[in-house]
Amino acid sequence: VPDVPDVARVVIIGAGFGGLAAAKELDGAPVQVTIVDRHNYHTFQPLLYQVATAGLNAADVAYAVRGIFHKQRNVSFRQADVTGVDWSTNTLVLDDGTLPFDHLVVAAGPTAAYFGIDGADEHGFPLYVLTDAIALRNHVLERFEEADADPSLIDDGALCFVVVGGGPTGVEVAGALSELFAMVLRKDFRMLDVSKARIVLVEMADVLLQPFSSPSQRHARERLTDMGVEVRTGEAVVRVTPTRVELKSGEELASHTLVWAAGVRANPLADAFGVATSRAGRIVVGPDLRIEDHDNAFAIGDIAAITGPDGELLPMLAPVAIQSGKHAAREIVRPHRNPFRYRDKGTMATIGRRAAVAELPLHIRLSGTPAWMAWLGLHLVTLAGFRNRLSVFLNWAWNYLTWDRGPRLIIKPDQPSPPRE
Amino acid sequence: VPDVPDVARVVIIGAGFGGLAAAKELDGAPVQVTIVDRHNYHTFQPLLYQVATAGLNAADVAYAVRGIFHKQRNVSFRQADVTGVDWSTNTLVLDDGTLPFDHLVVAAGPTAAYFGIDGADEHGFPLYVLTDAIALRNHVLERFEEADADPSLIDDGALCFVVVGGGPTGVEVAGALSELFAMVLRKDFRMLDVSKARIVLVEMADVLLQPFSSPSQRHARERLTDMGVEVRTGEAVVRVTPTRVELKSGEELASHTLVWAAGVRANPLADAFGVATSRAGRIVVGPDLRIEDHDNAFAIGDIAAITGPDGELLPMLAPVAIQSGKHAAREIVRPHRNPFRYRDKGTMATIGRRAAVAELPLHIRLSGTPAWMAWLGLHLVTLAGFRNRLSVFLNWAWNYLTWDRGPRLIIKPDQPSPPRE
Repeated sequence: VPDVPDVARVVIIGAGFGGLAAAKELDGAPVQVTIVDRHNYHTFQPLLYQVATAGLNAADVAYAVRGIFHKQRNVSFRQADVTGVDWSTNTLVLDDGTLPFDHLVVAAGPTAAYFGIDGADEHGFPLYVLTDAIALRNHVLERFEEADADPSLIDDGALCFVVVGGGPTGVEVAGALSELFAMVLRKDFRMLDVSKARIVLVEMADVLLQPFSSPSQRHARERLTDMGVEVRTGEAVVRVTPTRVELKSGEELASHTLVWAAGVRANPLADAFGVATSRAGRIVVGPDLRIEDHDNAFAIGDIAAITGPDGELLPMLAPVAIQSGKHAAREIVRPHRNPFRYRDKGTMATIGRRAAVAELPLHIRLSGTPAWMAWLGLHLVTLAGFRNRLSVFLNWAWNYLTWDRGPRLIIKPDQPSPPRE
Repeated sequence: VPDVPDVARVVIIGAGFGGLAAAKELDGAPVQVTIVDRHNYHTFQPLLYQVATAGLNAADVAYAVRGIFHKQRNVSFRQADVTGVDWSTNTLVLDDGTLPFDHLVVAAGPTAAYFGIDGADEHGFPLYVLTDAIALRNHVLERFEEADADPSLIDDGALCFVVVGGGPTGVEVAGALSELFAMVLRKDFRMLDVSKARIVLVEMADVLLQPFSSPSQRHARERLTDMGVEVRTGEAVVRVTPTRVELKSGEELASHTLVWAAGVRANPLADAFGVATSRAGRIVVGPDLRIEDHDNAFAIGDIAAITGPDGELLPMLAPVAIQSGKHAAREIVRPHRNPFRYRDKGTMATIGRRAAVAELPLHIRLSGTPAWMAWLGLHLVTLAGFRNRLSVFLNWAWNYLTWDRGPRLIIKPDQPSPPRE
C-alpha cells in the first residue's frame, strides 16, 4: 500500500535565501513543507566577511531554521546531508535516511570553484559557510600572534594577506581586513610593526566590481588604495602553497593567507542528481524554473542557471534567490505554468567605514556615505530575526563609535601539547 | 653577557580571573608583565553553562586579552602553551619558544578530574573552556535533531541527559537544560514529544550545593524537581559509554550525554613544573602564596592549595583567584613578605528563571527572585568589557521577555558526506 499523504509534500533543499523564501511563500497553502539543510541554521552570507574580520559574532549572522517557522505550522525541518535522489520514486536520499516528496525545490546554493589552480583548494580560505568565516578569522589572528612571538616570520609572509577576486566579496574582505589591522590590531600588537602587514587584492579582469559602472569601479579602487590595499587587476593566481602565492605574471608573493573570493560554482548536488547542468555546474531550468525532464522539481537561486531577459545567466545574488524561490512556491500551488521574471533591485558593495557603492534601479548610483548608509539599512532589514538585527545594529554602532572589533577571538578546539598529555 | 632588563620581568601563566587581577594590580609598577595563555581571550567561566545551553553567544563570555590591556602599557601578551620551566635559569618553556622571568605567577586554573571512572574522560562533557561549552551545545542540539529524524532513538537514551555533580555548575547546567527544553525546544520540535526528554542530576553526597546552608540546599532541590530534573543524591557514576551511564546503585541509564560537573583538579602544569602538590594536584604555597623552594614564584587561584584561616583549602572560586592574584602582585613589588588573607564575599548559584540561592557575608541568605537579581547583577558587573556586559544584558533581557534562546546553533566544521566528495 503506497503512502498517500493528505496534502502534497514539498521538500526544499537548502535553508538559504531561496529556500526560506519558497517556504514562507507556501504559508497557508495546503502543502506539507520540509526544509532539509546540513546546518540547523540559516546563514546570512552577505555578512560572513564581517565575522571573518571580527566585526560581528558568528551567532549574529546565523538563525535557527526551526525558530523562523515557529508560527508557520506547515513547515518542518530536517538536518541532514542530501546525497542523491531517486527520481523513479520521488525520494530524496539523505546521509541518514530518505525523504519522499511530491514537489522538490533545489536551493542548495553555491560552493567555491578553484578552476584546478594548484593548491587553492587545499590552502585557500573560501567564505560560503559560517565555519569558513570562523576559520578565516582564527587564521588571520593567529598570523598576528605568530608574528608577534617571532617577528622574523613577517619577512616570510606571515602578515601578507592575498585576497583573490575583485567582486563584492573580495572588495569587502580586503577593506575589512585593512580596517581591522589599522584600527584594532595596531593597538593590540604594540611590539609589532603592524604597518608591515600587506593586503593584496588580485583580480583577473582589468577592473574591480566588474558588473558595476565605471565610476563605482574607480571609487572602489581609489578607496581601497587609500586604505593601503594593493590592487592588482589583470593578474591571476596560478599556484598556492602554505607560505607562497604564485601569480600569472611570474611574481611570487610570500604570503601565509589566501582568501578565495574568486570562483563560485553551484553545489555539486546538481551532478549527484543526474540533471543537465550549464556553466559553473548550475542546473538547467525552463522559463518557469522547472528542471528539465522533472516537472515536479524546481531549481532556484545560485544552483539554477536562470536566464534573464537578454538571454544572460542571472547573477548568484540574494535577490535572484529570493524571487526565484517565491516563484517556485507559486508554481507548486497554481494550476498553470508561468514564466519567472526577475526584477533587478540593484546591487551594492561596501568597502569600509562610510565607503560603499550602490547601483539601484532607474540609474540611481550612490557612493561614499550615502551608499554605505543604504548598505547598512538594507542588510539590517533583510536579516532574519529581530534579535539578530538588534545585535548586528549594536555591534555596528559599537564598532563605528569605538573603532573596536570585539570578537577578535581565536576559537577552536584545544590541541593539548604533547608534554601535558 | 647576560640579558639585563631595565625592569623586573613578571610572567603570568593564565589569563583567567587570577592572572588578570595580578596584571591589573601591577599597573604603574616598574615591571614588565607578560601574560601567557593558550587562548587569546579571557573566558568568563561562570557563564560558560549559558553558552552550553544556548542562552548566550560564545563571544559574550570571551574577551580578547590584548584588548583588556590597551591602556596598561607595562603588560604584553603571548599566546602559547606552557610546557615546563627551567628553574635554574628562570625560564619558562613554551611550545614554540622560551620566556625568561624574574618573577613568575602561576595562575593556570583548573581542569576536569575523572577519578579514573571508566569512559568519563572519553565521553563526558566538561565545562572549563569556551570550546567545551560550544561542544556541549552542539551535542545537545544534535541529540534533538537525531531524535526528531528517528524517534526510536529516544528509547535508546538520545534525550536523556545526565549531569554529574551537584555543585553550582551541575545545578546551573541541569536547570538551564530544563528551561531550554521546556521553553524553546518544545516549540522547535513540534513532531517530537519533548516531554520525554530527561535530565538526571547525580551527586555523590546526600545534598546538592554542599557548601551552602540547608535551606539553600533544599530550595535548589525543590526548584530543580519542580522543573522536572531528576535529582539523585547519594549516587555516583561508575562507568560511561557513548550510550549508557552506569550508576553505583547498579542502575544503568540509557543516555547519550554525560555532562561532567563533578571533579575538578589543578591544571597538570603543576606536575610539569616539578613542584610539590597537594590535594587535587594543587601547588603547595606558603602563607604569602610563594611556591615552596621558589621565592620568585607564586601560585594563585584554582591551581594553588591556599589554606584558609581554619586550615582548610580555599575553594576553587573566582573571588579566591582575584584576591590571591592581587596579593601575589603586591608581594612582587613590596620589600617585605605578607601573608595572604582571604575575605569571603559569599557564594551563589542560579537554578533558572528567577530562581537562585545566594549566601553572603553577615549570614545574609537570599533565595528565589532576590538571589537571582543579585546573581545577575554581580555577573554583569564582573564581566570584562562594557561591550560584553551590554551584549549579555541584552541577551538576558531578550531571553527573559521572549522565552527564546537565540544561539541554538550547531556550529562545527562540515564533514562532507562521502558521496559528494
